[in-house]
Amino acid sequence: MTREDEMGDTMLNFYGGDDRVYNQSFFKQFPKDTARGYASEVTIVVKDIDELYQEVSEKLKKYIVREIAEKKDHGHVWRDFRMVDPFGFYLRFTEILDWGQK
Amino acid sequence: MTREDEMGDTMLNFYGGDDRVYNQSFFKQFPKDTARGYASEVTIVVKDIDELYQEVSEKLKKYIVREIAEKKDHGHVWRDFRMVDPFGFYLRFTEILDWGQK
Repeated sequence: MTREDEMGDTMLNFYGGDDRVYNQSFFKQFPKDTARGYASEVTIVVKDIDELYQEVSEKLKKYIVREIAEKKDHGHVWRDFRMVDPFGFYLRFTEILDWGQK
Repeated sequence: MTREDEMGDTMLNFYGGDDRVYNQSFFKQFPKDTARGYASEVTIVVKDIDELYQEVSEKLKKYIVREIAEKKDHGHVWRDFRMVDPFGFYLRFTEILDWGQK
């Protein structure tokens, strides 16, 4: 995941399906069973959330941690659902909504 | 942090300086002292790493977790240093290098 700004580019690296994180200079200080990505949420905006949810429900049901639901906040109404990837990273899939993105 | 692709926009949310993460539907299952952002690394490319490191060393020294050092990998040579933000998220500042970014 990258971001461009005046200073330069930003890239986000997730340590996934191997043991490298256990030997990484900073992360090796933590227990191996630490929840990956604790306190960070990847929000993915999708065009047709019903279609995606239908497909995910059929093929990846065990990774769904919250079913699709209507949400309300600050006068907005939208639907989203939540998943956890195989490594424990937390993902939110949501309908498009103007929440300050480009 | 946002990313655009054919499916839509992606945004990354970090839970920072308050207690919301302790009550969040997914993250509340973990101990409050879980390392934030475990196994995820934000890599920030900067134009003048010596200037930034000098400033950081003077003003934010306690957040530096690895001093500036020359790195070599796959035929590339570059310098970087590492910090942890006040909430525990891990940051890598590096010289520009072609590592596949846009």
